Amino acid sequence: MSRNLDFPIPPPAASAASVPPLPATPEMAPATPRAGTGIGRSIVLIGLPGAGKSSVGKRLAQMLGLPFHDADLEIEAAAGLPITEIFARYGEPHFREGERRVIARLLAGPPLVLATGGGAYVDPETRRAIRESGALTVWLRVEIPLLLPRVSNRATRPLFLQQDPEAVLQRLRAARHPIYAEADLTVDCCDESPEDTTARVQRAIEGFSAPARLPVALSGREYDVVVGEHLLERAGGLLSGALPGRRVAIISDASVAALHLPALRGGLEAAGFTIGASLTIPPGEGSKSLASFGRVLEELLAAGIDRNTAVVALGGGVVGDLAGFVAASALRGLPFVQVPTTLLAQVDSSVGGKTGINLASGKNLAGAFWQPRIVLADTGVLATLSPRELRAGYAEVAKHGLLQGPLWDWCEAEGARAVAGDAAALRHAVLESCRLKSAVVAADEREESAEGGRALLNLGHTFGHAVEAECGYDGSLLHGEAVALGLGLAARLSARLGFCEAGLPGRVEAHLAAVGLPARLAELPRRFPVERLMARMRKDKKVREGRMRFVLLRAPGQAFTWSEVPPAEVESLLRDEGCLS
Amino acid sequence: MSRNLDFPIPPPAASAASVPPLPATPEMAPATPRAGTGIGRSIVLIGLPGAGKSSVGKRLAQMLGLPFHDADLEIEAAAGLPITEIFARYGEPHFREGERRVIARLLAGPPLVLATGGGAYVDPETRRAIRESGALTVWLRVEIPLLLPRVSNRATRPLFLQQDPEAVLQRLRAARHPIYAEADLTVDCCDESPEDTTARVQRAIEGFSAPARLPVALSGREYDVVVGEHLLERAGGLLSGALPGRRVAIISDASVAALHLPALRGGLEAAGFTIGASLTIPPGEGSKSLASFGRVLEELLAAGIDRNTAVVALGGGVVGDLAGFVAASALRGLPFVQVPTTLLAQVDSSVGGKTGINLASGKNLAGAFWQPRIVLADTGVLATLSPRELRAGYAEVAKHGLLQGPLWDWCEAEGARAVAGDAAALRHAVLESCRLKSAVVAADEREESAEGGRALLNLGHTFGHAVEAECGYDGSLLHGEAVALGLGLAARLSARLGFCEAGLPGRVEAHLAAVGLPARLAELPRRFPVERLMARMRKDKKVREGRMRFVLLRAPGQAFTWSEVPPAEVESLLRDEGCLS
Repeated sequence: MSRNLDFPIPPPAASAASVPPLPATPEMAPATPRAGTGIGRSIVLIGLPGAGKSSVGKRLAQMLGLPFHDADLEIEAAAGLPITEIFARYGEPHFREGERRVIARLLAGPPLVLATGGGAYVDPETRRAIRESGALTVWLRVEIPLLLPRVSNRATRPLFLQQDPEAVLQRLRAARHPIYAEADLTVDCCDESPEDTTARVQRAIEGFSAPARLPVALSGREYDVVVGEHLLERAGGLLSGALPGRRVAIISDASVAALHLPALRGGLEAAGFTIGASLTIPPGEGSKSLASFGRVLEELLAAGIDRNTAVVALGGGVVGDLAGFVAASALRGLPFVQVPTTLLAQVDSSVGGKTGINLASGKNLAGAFWQPRIVLADTGVLATLSPRELRAGYAEVAKHGLLQGPLWDWCEAEGARAVAGDAAALRHAVLESCRLKSAVVAADEREESAEGGRALLNLGHTFGHAVEAECGYDGSLLHGEAVALGLGLAARLSARLGFCEAGLPGRVEAHLAAVGLPARLAELPRRFPVERLMARMRKDKKVREGRMRFVLLRAPGQAFTWSEVPPAEVESLLRDEGCLS
Repeated sequence: MSRNLDFPIPPPAASAASVPPLPATPEMAPATPRAGTGIGRSIVLIGLPGAGKSSVGKRLAQMLGLPFHDADLEIEAAAGLPITEIFARYGEPHFREGERRVIARLLAGPPLVLATGGGAYVDPETRRAIRESGALTVWLRVEIPLLLPRVSNRATRPLFLQQDPEAVLQRLRAARHPIYAEADLTVDCCDESPEDTTARVQRAIEGFSAPARLPVALSGREYDVVVGEHLLERAGGLLSGALPGRRVAIISDASVAALHLPALRGGLEAAGFTIGASLTIPPGEGSKSLASFGRVLEELLAAGIDRNTAVVALGGGVVGDLAGFVAASALRGLPFVQVPTTLLAQVDSSVGGKTGINLASGKNLAGAFWQPRIVLADTGVLATLSPRELRAGYAEVAKHGLLQGPLWDWCEAEGARAVAGDAAALRHAVLESCRLKSAVVAADEREESAEGGRALLNLGHTFGHAVEAECGYDGSLLHGEAVALGLGLAARLSARLGFCEAGLPGRVEAHLAAVGLPARLAELPRRFPVERLMARMRKDKKVREGRMRFVLLRAPGQAFTWSEVPPAEVESLLRDEGCLS
């Protein structure tokens, strides 16, 4: 039965010989699941001919206690013909269709190790079938000098029939490596024994944790926020499904580029991407200027970007905001990719499509809503952040906790681990923050809701922006530190107005203090005049028809926007918190 | 029957006296249509109490040979109660509902003259019913000193009961004038006899030609291109339905502002709009720069615009492109209105949402697709253009003709009248151009179609842009003149490649020459090197993967995009047209 479904007799082509009835073959026996493998999913090995998929696959299956199958042998069994004959008689499309069915059937059963033919993963439908089966794909990457002796006896493989093996391999490498780069794992194989390669593959599999994909569902468009480790190295494979072409321009800042640009370039080039331009801007808020915007635009255009070139932002909020506005504006809009490298950018600024620059009148006053095609939040890069930067980014996680509810409980219980750099805690913080933010953004992309909606994400920001602006963006108070102060003040204001229980402000401040963030204005070395902060707040973007609009709390998980706050109440709160009247 | 339908007995309110049964009234006799009025539609008079709607209306009806009705009297007849009693017993909402039904019923019949109560047109539903009936609305605008003596005996009108008449009028004026401004016609009444006012109203009606509205149907949004005369004076009424608020910032250039800004300001202020900022840029292509973009952004933000402020572009293509990009970027996107004042802008650049500035690498390389909320193409302002500007703009009309077919026949027959400044011909040219362009844009907003689509609008522009760029945008060759040359070359290329009949290029060139446009490169005083033009064309935005993409013709009305044009054929054409090899 499997044979007939996998390889039905094709209708005779006008120029083809008549098709003989395919001989019967025994049914494929379902693989027996074995306990204790610890993997729980199938492993699919991909790579060029001669990469060792079968020899490594057999050994790997034994070590993992899983059955092993070779897709090519299964195909020959199902068709009752050697592959060369299937090609010769029915052509490649017929072969690929049958191959896809055989692979899908094998992966639909219990976990196994599957070695695939070199062209299987290149077929888009087969690739999708493998991905959707939940199998883990491992690319055995082997360079041509090692492959050449191994394929010299491959006269039975159709691609090598009567051709120069090296030329064939060169051609295959150019066409296939960019697609193999979409594999979950890449293992570079050198001149070593199959046992050694197998051991390295096994270690890679055991160390692998699959990135999470959070879809941001916008009307007419949808994109994924991918959260995980080693995403820079895999960037090409991750981007190729999300972009119209394989040409990018990377925008980064000098500090981030020194740390992470090589990994990103490598990851992109492995998937056949061309880096059409790679620009760096000076680190810091000063780069979110009209002058930088113009400079980057001119450099990109001078580099000859076209409408299929994607702009990739590698960095924190400044890089993402500037590069996003550039992407929105160059040639009236280019595909855009966010690769945030700070915690603040991963949990907040890279998701949601807000881009922009600062003007003399204030921050973020010019820009665009320009959604990325994909966001790669590689939590591994957070290890390069200073403790202060990590803490500042965490303030937005705490904000999301207060908006979401259960995440606030997690913050109180586990947030300190995230701030201390624990990889699992950071991953959870990024994932849950992105989950919350993407849901809010999807419901109110352009912040047009009269009440609630995207404006809720400004919890703590009305106060925070005012304090930050008073400090002059000189680095003495980071944005996240200002947000922490703002969260405490928002909780205090909510309590004063009787919206939340009296204990909430103390609870919020205690947690922020516990993770090393400033929680009360009195902790800062300077005193702010009440009137200065009030004047700043009256210029907030949320002000409508002259009325300040605050985000307030009834409890963690119950935030709302409110335009009826009496200014005198805010002034009184600020005085009580040590501001100068 | 009409009474019961118009004024059903409302359910008794808790605090209201019991409702007496309404007495019967005779049915409204349908008005008899009279031949020879020449108007063919009803006239609705609106205005404040005392404006003379009844006295002018009666006289007007007599002069036009139409029946006259006073809506308030009809309401009292239908309800069997004086208006003061309807207000007192059932409240204003009940009165307005009945009023709306009475007015809708009257306007559903044959043409008549209808005087409405001062509040009728202010009710949004009644206003819509009047608009949708097809009636012509005339606002009798009278200022308070004239109204005051007329309303002093209005004790029977509920709004004046026991109140200071002047205070009431002040209040009514502030609330209602902005809405009356939506009328089709405004007649300013001074201290004159009702006969004189009536004569002026009649002349205004006879001179009125209704503007055309072309909907541009984009997914999720739709906006109108309004084509007609006296639109600047009516701008406020036209904009009020298309914008979220009544606050605008106007961007213009110094030359246009001197001619047309007062009319636009007046039109906006009559409808209660606040002009939050009014900026001018220097005329000319030099203003489509990053520096101008930044300057205008900074000035707008310093003027305190908010998210409900609409940016209004008053001017030609430079103003529209720059102001549109500013609108797209300020506060991440403000509502935008195009008020094009050149023929080029009316027939082309103001429709379709392409905005942008020039970079060092080329024209229009940064910008946004940012659709206006409404376009007001006031063909009356075209009278202020120089003959050369009018001709240059006409080149895009001819292009639309070649794309559309029947419009090309019109061009050959009537285009010379448009270029000579004939108002009716210009109106037709603008209307049909906008009709074609809005249909193309609606089908392919972001120029993403692989073939055809929005790219067709570039007919003549691949050659035209190259020639224009070689001339250096110094005014020696206007954009439209370059397009005319490009149209001739595109037709010649189409004929060389065998796509169209051999006579088409001559026909195109003959028409362009007939309207005074340059049709062949040999007519210019300078010679262009073939290689320079080829190099320019290879940098065209339509180039994909290195291949030039031309818009070619099979015949007028049959254009297509083509990427297979042999460069040698283009070079040979250019040599034949006198370029230097």
